[in-house]
Amino acid sequence: MKILCAVGSPRKYGSSYKLAEFAAKGARDAGAEVEMLYLVDYRIEPCAGCVSDDKMACRYPCIFEDDMKALYDKVLEASGVVISTPVYWYSPPGIVKNFIDRLTALENMAVVEGRSWVEGKVAGVIAVGNDSGSVHAISTLLATLVSMGFAIPPWGFACYNEEREVLEDRGVLLDAYNVGRCVAIMCKALEREERAWYLDRVEDLGEFVELVVQNSEKLRRSQADVRRFARFSP
Amino acid sequence: MKILCAVGSPRKYGSSYKLAEFAAKGARDAGAEVEMLYLVDYRIEPCAGCVSDDKMACRYPCIFEDDMKALYDKVLEASGVVISTPVYWYSPPGIVKNFIDRLTALENMAVVEGRSWVEGKVAGVIAVGNDSGSVHAISTLLATLVSMGFAIPPWGFACYNEEREVLEDRGVLLDAYNVGRCVAIMCKALEREERAWYLDRVEDLGEFVELVVQNSEKLRRSQADVRRFARFSP
Amino acid sequence: MKILCAVGSPRKYGSSYKLAEFAAKGARDAGAEVEMLYLVDYRIEPCAGCVSDDKMACRYPCIFEDDMKALYDKVLEASGVVISTPVYWYSPPGIVKNFIDRLTALENMAVVEGRSWVEGKVAGVIAVGNDSGSVHAISTLLATLVSMGFAIPPWGFACYNEEREVLEDRGVLLDAYNVGRCVAIMCKALEREERAWYLDRVEDLGEFVELVVQNSEKLRRSQADVRRFARFSP
Amino acid sequence: MKILCAVGSPRKYGSSYKLAEFAAKGARDAGAEVEMLYLVDYRIEPCAGCVSDDKMACRYPCIFEDDMKALYDKVLEASGVVISTPVYWYSPPGIVKNFIDRLTALENMAVVEGRSWVEGKVAGVIAVGNDSGSVHAISTLLATLVSMGFAIPPWGFACYNEEREVLEDRGVLLDAYNVGRCVAIMCKALEREERAWYLDRVEDLGEFVELVVQNSEKLRRSQADVRRFARFSP
Repeated sequence: MKILCAVGSPRKYGSSYKLAEFAAKGARDAGAEVEMLYLVDYRIEPCAGCVSDDKMACRYPCIFEDDMKALYDKVLEASGVVISTPVYWYSPPGIVKNFIDRLTALENMAVVEGRSWVEGKVAGVIAVGNDSGSVHAISTLLATLVSMGFAIPPWGFACYNEEREVLEDRGVLLDAYNVGRCVAIMCKALEREERAWYLDRVEDLGEFVELVVQNSEKLRRSQADVRRFARFSP
Repeated sequence: MKILCAVGSPRKYGSSYKLAEFAAKGARDAGAEVEMLYLVDYRIEPCAGCVSDDKMACRYPCIFEDDMKALYDKVLEASGVVISTPVYWYSPPGIVKNFIDRLTALENMAVVEGRSWVEGKVAGVIAVGNDSGSVHAISTLLATLVSMGFAIPPWGFACYNEEREVLEDRGVLLDAYNVGRCVAIMCKALEREERAWYLDRVEDLGEFVELVVQNSEKLRRSQADVRRFARFSP
Repeated sequence: MKILCAVGSPRKYGSSYKLAEFAAKGARDAGAEVEMLYLVDYRIEPCAGCVSDDKMACRYPCIFEDDMKALYDKVLEASGVVISTPVYWYSPPGIVKNFIDRLTALENMAVVEGRSWVEGKVAGVIAVGNDSGSVHAISTLLATLVSMGFAIPPWGFACYNEEREVLEDRGVLLDAYNVGRCVAIMCKALEREERAWYLDRVEDLGEFVELVVQNSEKLRRSQADVRRFARFSP
Repeated sequence: MKILCAVGSPRKYGSSYKLAEFAAKGARDAGAEVEMLYLVDYRIEPCAGCVSDDKMACRYPCIFEDDMKALYDKVLEASGVVISTPVYWYSPPGIVKNFIDRLTALENMAVVEGRSWVEGKVAGVIAVGNDSGSVHAISTLLATLVSMGFAIPPWGFACYNEEREVLEDRGVLLDAYNVGRCVAIMCKALEREERAWYLDRVEDLGEFVELVVQNSEKLRRSQADVRRFARFSP
């Protein structure tokens, strides 16, 4: 069971690095093998948005010949990924965003061949900023990761935005540790699940639509006029 | 294995109801027992924010004697929860927000007695609006749910914001179906996990801090001056 | 020039109240008359979502006979509004959300009679939480207010999420002061603008579409194949 | 009065370009001179995050010798800016994010010399995606721009996320037109404001703190115990 721990800061020694180390420790303590990597060490071209010209155009291994190729393979081999990012203006910096944007080539395999190549992997997020925007960055990343097919474990994110040295704040160190730990526990729990998650053929969907139409109509009548029902009319 | 499917619209017959039915079907098809409920049928007082006066004050079963008591028990009995909400101004309406705010009494048991009472449960989200704000609402809910201790499965959200009747859009019906399905699959996968997720005592945390301080220093020196490293200086 | 300062906390004495006072002072020092109000003192029913049944159904003064009537009139009389809200789960609490949701009856006059009744008013936002979610709440509120027709001045929001007593943090007191001040300055600057902001009839829009089609085609050809242009091919 | 219209897509001919043209027309029709620019034509290095090492280090004209220098000067000369961005994963792509991150060198002049160099300028945003994440991207950008010192006019954003050709949707063309128009109108309204917006010295702030402490105490007593006040106890 392998977990990738990606540090997104241009400053490899900063707080997002430090918290990433604690996530790595949490994952290792829970039995995972961890690889740390620093996005700043890789040349990642910005996504060219091919998918907007042609839905089938965006696919592994992308049209660019750059270091993202190595990163794709690392992600594919891993059961879980932890992204530890600084927060610039309430969101990840361009370096991290380019990495995320380029992951589309794995996710869009759902369109190309029916299944996202990251489906069923597990992800966690750490965000560090010097104001109160960390959760906004995290909310963006969580929605993105789930929408790509990742699962998020309980306590799957940590954030910090105080000026005080992060290593002096035991609370956030534990939070980061548990991001790694919970990603690892969930990787283990899900590896027994062999089947595909997203089911795109449901035979009785048409009949079910009929049923819901009828139920909805019944509910509408029972609510009569939404403007009159008891709890709203004082 | 029981899954709760909470419809958040004041209009019980609307699109968020309809998609909730598909999530319920997905969960049932994957072996779960499902209970549908309509938040509008319950009297839920707004949260009084006691936790801001005293961290220990917010605890199950809350100070209010209202219908939330029944809802707490439903949540506690369930392995998973699907929240299907309309989107008013890029976020859930007040009815849903009051429900979320009041769930704090379960989450804050982490402070009161060391463990969130929803830790390890699984959640999915469906959001329906008539403009492009659904994902914003979902990002808020995902961050909230993870932060309470819920896990989010792959494909754990669905959203819709077109004017066309939702039942005519096969894509979103499948998305909603899979929210329920994946919540159910993950409930099954996690129920074998007996142990607590969040570990709040890590014996060698202090030593590890030392190690990270040293590594960080090494990285700083190796990056020398961030202003000079090759990829930034053209 | 009148500015409304709405405190959204159930705890009238809390940090969002305190910062609201500084916004009020900033507005007064800049020449405005300020009215403080506490949303918790008003009975505000949750929005019934009538607009989803019928776009023309949502209009001033709403179908509910509750205290929102008084609030509508206060908003209509004011040139500017400051909302000071606590942050529960990265967003305003249900009390504030109900207030926002119900403001739709003023905004939807754009559909009913061609002009939002809050168009051209000025808004500022203050958010106080005990974690790092304040900016997320603010981002939701800013998008909402702009989308209703409000203008946001420079430095139009302030937020705080430290445990330390807010009154001891000079920085955030100044931020809150300047929210009020800048709302007031902008109210003054805009009151000279008599004309409507949103123009819904532009005579030469059709011709212009043609022009843009041609330009777009030219740009597409000049970029040839996005996959080949210099900066992307290493 | 000059307005800058920045297109953020790698595809210069795409929907964000098209809507940018309508914003440009709206601004021109309202009397502004407009410059269109395509971020993809400029080499913009990712921000190195110097400010995290030293708050005073981040300042105009930044440490990088790249095309951002030209862009800084364009922004400084302009009274208003419209950013038209595609939406990749609920946020602007890396290209746009790098541009935003690098603008910090203008904003951080607030720390360096007491005043943000973009204070009082006006901004509008257009976002185009193929799912429902546009408003999330916009919420991030609005919070960012206001936090840098920009003002946002009424109707200051437009978004689109349908698959249909954008030029066939009259509603969004008008929305984009009005983003430009309202930015221009507000530039005109604000250019008469000579004074600084953010006031960082308020003489009687200390006394006022005392007053608020007393008022807060009075309010606390009058609310007695928040758990008992009438509207919460059913």
